[in-house]
Amino acid sequence: MFSTIDAQHMARALQLAKRGLLTTRPNPRVGCVIVRGDQVVGEGAHLKAGEPHAEVHALRAAGDAARGATAYVTLEPCSHYGRTPPCAEALIKAGVARVVAAMVDPNPQVAGRGLKMLQNAGIEVSHGLLQAQAEALNPGFIKRMRTGFPFVTIKLAASVDGRTALANGESKWITGPKARQDVQRLRARCDAIITGADSVLIDDPSMNVRHSQLGHWQAKLEPQQLQQPLRVVIDGRARLAPPLQLLQCEGEILLATTEEYQCQWPEAVSTWRSAPHNGKVDLILLMMELGKRGINEVLVEAGASLAAAFIKAELWDEIVLYQAPKLMGNPARGLLELPEFAQMTEAVSLQFNDIRLVGGDLRLSLTRRER
Amino acid sequence: MFSTIDAQHMARALQLAKRGLLTTRPNPRVGCVIVRGDQVVGEGAHLKAGEPHAEVHALRAAGDAARGATAYVTLEPCSHYGRTPPCAEALIKAGVARVVAAMVDPNPQVAGRGLKMLQNAGIEVSHGLLQAQAEALNPGFIKRMRTGFPFVTIKLAASVDGRTALANGESKWITGPKARQDVQRLRARCDAIITGADSVLIDDPSMNVRHSQLGHWQAKLEPQQLQQPLRVVIDGRARLAPPLQLLQCEGEILLATTEEYQCQWPEAVSTWRSAPHNGKVDLILLMMELGKRGINEVLVEAGASLAAAFIKAELWDEIVLYQAPKLMGNPARGLLELPEFAQMTEAVSLQFNDIRLVGGDLRLSLTRRER
Repeated sequence: MFSTIDAQHMARALQLAKRGLLTTRPNPRVGCVIVRGDQVVGEGAHLKAGEPHAEVHALRAAGDAARGATAYVTLEPCSHYGRTPPCAEALIKAGVARVVAAMVDPNPQVAGRGLKMLQNAGIEVSHGLLQAQAEALNPGFIKRMRTGFPFVTIKLAASVDGRTALANGESKWITGPKARQDVQRLRARCDAIITGADSVLIDDPSMNVRHSQLGHWQAKLEPQQLQQPLRVVIDGRARLAPPLQLLQCEGEILLATTEEYQCQWPEAVSTWRSAPHNGKVDLILLMMELGKRGINEVLVEAGASLAAAFIKAELWDEIVLYQAPKLMGNPARGLLELPEFAQMTEAVSLQFNDIRLVGGDLRLSLTRRER
Repeated sequence: MFSTIDAQHMARALQLAKRGLLTTRPNPRVGCVIVRGDQVVGEGAHLKAGEPHAEVHALRAAGDAARGATAYVTLEPCSHYGRTPPCAEALIKAGVARVVAAMVDPNPQVAGRGLKMLQNAGIEVSHGLLQAQAEALNPGFIKRMRTGFPFVTIKLAASVDGRTALANGESKWITGPKARQDVQRLRARCDAIITGADSVLIDDPSMNVRHSQLGHWQAKLEPQQLQQPLRVVIDGRARLAPPLQLLQCEGEILLATTEEYQCQWPEAVSTWRSAPHNGKVDLILLMMELGKRGINEVLVEAGASLAAAFIKAELWDEIVLYQAPKLMGNPARGLLELPEFAQMTEAVSLQFNDIRLVGGDLRLSLTRRER
């Protein structure tokens, strides 16, 4: 069993883990606190793939004080040689007496082996403390490790009557500046952003993350630490060609298509071709491909048809809907091109996960309805 | 200036006033607390038109203890002979030393005369304590006294993508039972409910308040104390005729039309005819008529066209939108038949006034955007 003191230290480790929110990709966000007696002797967070894990930072800070101490880690210490030696080994060498992990590592290369390794070395091992909070830190990493698919968030924005643009296409702006900053933060934590060729052809967007528009997250990292997510454009009929605003800013671009491009693309652009599925890019294969490429979290920022395609294919985990306090009326454009339903039970059934005001707009997080 | 003690007693008076929430029509909800020294010696609330006002109840409870006491009232004591003698007179006779009113009575028959009468009798008089809260008790009475028009709440219900029914008309049920109970509470506090002939012809609703469906308000009053709001049906072309579910339950019905009915209506039904405005019932004249009839609060429960007509005519004060966590898609029916807008600035600009979950649904209260 865990004590209140245990929970306090784990809460601190969770807090430390958040330091890596925007930078650990494709690795998980992990925090570690080392406590000897009633003294915190070391703290650490994993910040960047290839750099030391949270445990190593914390052990370095603790030095000899780690001997006989308790290590609180938000994720099971790794047991395998990756880009760094296994953390379980480092904890054993440092002589810690007890390890508390918030959750077992879903990575099949670890999956309990790290805890076992510690236990075999005579260390007191337990896990499950603040597990739900630890899982919430890494929805993408966990889903990818368990299923091969990334965690998909669909971002939508509309008036309270569910309209995304006037009949003439005008949509600037439905939501206010605070909501648009919040979208920048959604983008910043994602590994990939997906949009459709139609959106690119009509709006010619950059689809990048702008440090100056991260609001209260600006303080989290220096502009040069900002990693641009992979920008994925679904362009089934290979209609895109340079020049595009997409190409004007830093970061990689992946064009998902079913045909061959006739144009030359700059180096930052790669293409991925699937056999057509009902004449379109096969979204399931695309998501599997992104999973293989180490993409944990995907943000879909698409129009009414492509967003609906992700919903119909059940390829989503969370919907973030920004609602502006406006009424645009039935002639305006609708939010989702779902098929016509004959019965209410066919409607997509959700539940409210989180509700908050962002500036003058409402931000709803919706997930699948739990039975 | 007011003390913290003053505010505490006025807060209690506001609480008492709420006892009349469902029953004082067409009178305002008013509460009164009489305090002598640090002792509450009398409390009262106005409960029903024609019965004693809050001050009278509180004075009766206080008896001789009212002499030299302070009376806290949520609305200026009346100065005129209505169905009961003026409360200002009763307070003077009882010998109270001080009167604190939350707000001046907007009734032109009072409008400061009650306070003046008290002052002239040598009583220490002040007003404005918790005024915003006092105004929130009686939005309809205040608006009617100031403008002649009732306070209009438009009730809407939709999925989060703004759809009210499937393409085939199916709409049972979009929102859950808790939200539908909340609508019953909206109805119960209103003096009139307005709907359109189309809704009546299609759904044949009762449009009444059911005591058993008031949820946590059931304890507020006995079933026999429940007053049915006036049910108003806008039936411009006089298409309605018996039998109708509307006629099966207790309560008055007003049919607003521009033509003459050929059928016989039972006694509970009256008709009101206006000259047509663009071929339809003139909503402005209808609202003035309801104001003249002492209707303080109106609830509009109408379809996409009639609700939009109230919005276009600027004949509304609050929109209560229940949003179910469902996606119904673009083929489903839209919320409001507003005209096509050419620019975003033409969209109806609102602000969120109150946001809460009611069961699994979201309940949004929206008001006009303040500049």
